[in-house]
Amino acid sequence: MSDIPGHITITEEGPREGFQIEPGPIPPAQKIALIEALAETGLREIQVVSFVNPKRVPGMADADQVVAGLTAHDGVAYTALWLNDQGFLRAAATGKLDLRATLSLSASAGFIQRNQNRTPAEALAAQHASLELYRAHRVPIEQGFISAAFGCNFDGDIPVERVVRITDDLLALAGDHGVTLPRINLADTMAWATPGSVRRVVGAVRERHPDLEIALHLHDTRGLGLANAYAGLEMGVRHFDAAIGGLGGCPFAEHQGAAGNVCTEDLAFMCEEMGIDTGLDLDRLIAAARLAEQIVGHPLPGAVKQGGSLKRLRQARAAG
Amino acid sequence: MSDIPGHITITEEGPREGFQIEPGPIPPAQKIALIEALAETGLREIQVVSFVNPKRVPGMADADQVVAGLTAHDGVAYTALWLNDQGFLRAAATGKLDLRATLSLSASAGFIQRNQNRTPAEALAAQHASLELYRAHRVPIEQGFISAAFGCNFDGDIPVERVVRITDDLLALAGDHGVTLPRINLADTMAWATPGSVRRVVGAVRERHPDLEIALHLHDTRGLGLANAYAGLEMGVRHFDAAIGGLGGCPFAEHQGAAGNVCTEDLAFMCEEMGIDTGLDLDRLIAAARLAEQIVGHPLPGAVKQGGSLKRLRQARAAG
Repeated sequence: MSDIPGHITITEEGPREGFQIEPGPIPPAQKIALIEALAETGLREIQVVSFVNPKRVPGMADADQVVAGLTAHDGVAYTALWLNDQGFLRAAATGKLDLRATLSLSASAGFIQRNQNRTPAEALAAQHASLELYRAHRVPIEQGFISAAFGCNFDGDIPVERVVRITDDLLALAGDHGVTLPRINLADTMAWATPGSVRRVVGAVRERHPDLEIALHLHDTRGLGLANAYAGLEMGVRHFDAAIGGLGGCPFAEHQGAAGNVCTEDLAFMCEEMGIDTGLDLDRLIAAARLAEQIVGHPLPGAVKQGGSLKRLRQARAAG
Repeated sequence: MSDIPGHITITEEGPREGFQIEPGPIPPAQKIALIEALAETGLREIQVVSFVNPKRVPGMADADQVVAGLTAHDGVAYTALWLNDQGFLRAAATGKLDLRATLSLSASAGFIQRNQNRTPAEALAAQHASLELYRAHRVPIEQGFISAAFGCNFDGDIPVERVVRITDDLLALAGDHGVTLPRINLADTMAWATPGSVRRVVGAVRERHPDLEIALHLHDTRGLGLANAYAGLEMGVRHFDAAIGGLGGCPFAEHQGAAGNVCTEDLAFMCEEMGIDTGLDLDRLIAAARLAEQIVGHPLPGAVKQGGSLKRLRQARAAG
């Protein structure tokens, strides 16, 4: 318990994770409206779009248009996801994004095969090539990212030692190009993590690299998102990816099995109530979550937007 | 982490918590069908109805009819809730229930005033009288119960010392009648708990009464149900109340703010994946949760019934 941090940062991924999975189509103006609302909540980084093949992800076909319509906010970085060099070059061409690169490997060979049609060795070679491209464009490396770090629908349970080894691989990959990785992001891509495995995996990585910042990218497909986040907090984790309203993982029929990130405002609420500073305005997050719900046109799984914040209840008591 | 128990028990409260809040009407036969499905999951105690004023809780007007239609299952106790002596006498008159009494006090005077129109002193006096009635009927005392132990919409934050004091009051109340309380149930009635406050409150009660069994009755209104349950597990808690599918707390418009128990199958899934024995069959729980969803006619918040169990994925991989 003593490792619980005094403050954390949340990277918002709702617009990217969420809108790529919604059947849509959602007009770019509505995506922009949500991003603008999020920019007023205290978030410092919002992943706004992904530059991916529009045939595979129709919901992101308008990525350039969305970015073109964004207004800059002081202190808010608009970032994007890409999966290959072509995507990166599209992101760079917008001239409006805060380009931050992620070096990504997977703890699951089966996942990489299905997702990228590559062997682990091919995936590693591709990261070497991308890193050269990032350096040529003077793009900072934000983090290393390990997908399927807690388990995989194709490869099953993932040994802790493998995650430690891939952390080493990522640090070596960066080192080969003279780059120091500031952070490693452990991703529960397919929602296999439990509080117990979060403690084990984070603990093993932290023990080997005590000075490496650790982030968690948690999915809530099986309801354990916040319990896993709490286990991460207990292990001193200070950075989380999250999605407003729980976008991208609506646990209902039309998205059965879809794995959305842990919900931003629920995570912020838990932290606020535990005295952990997030720098976020919970009321504005709740308003943004309700806007997201209006935009997608169906209920989103976030709870506190329905249950209401306790700060509000305390204020009502004080006033009444 | 070392206090995490090897096994836990879950008391199922879905039929009672859930059906009393649903707009309904839900035919008794459907309630019975859900209870029968639950009786096949390994649950040892199912709270099937509450005997309360049908004018205040129309969804429970058919309580006698539901109980009359139940079939006994070996090893499964069908229990009921009542809030006064009249309700107890109705429960006793069915002749079919496993009568187990709870001695109940609240950590919040404001809640007791609103809920029962009693002062704390009047509530305590009523419990003395009820205890005499239970003894006359030879009904065992299952537990002491402290509502609003983590906070209250009317009285706000609840000091830890008050919960410890009310635990003492409950033990003294039982002791005055020659009864030993086997268990104290700390209830987060209005969903104010966080993992941090669960640790503090459970820790304080446990420190004062190291041999007293502690149960948690957690609500998921603000999304922290499972995170709070995990914090309880870390503190050695071995007994939880829960509701199948998350019945009683659908976080959507028609039940805005409704506070349902933590979801049975999600809690069981978390425990199973952490190697904590529950004695429950997760597949059957998921089937029962889907049945509950059909009966109420709208989505229920439980996640694993949508996301699917990991055991199933492992089996599918093993099968090739």
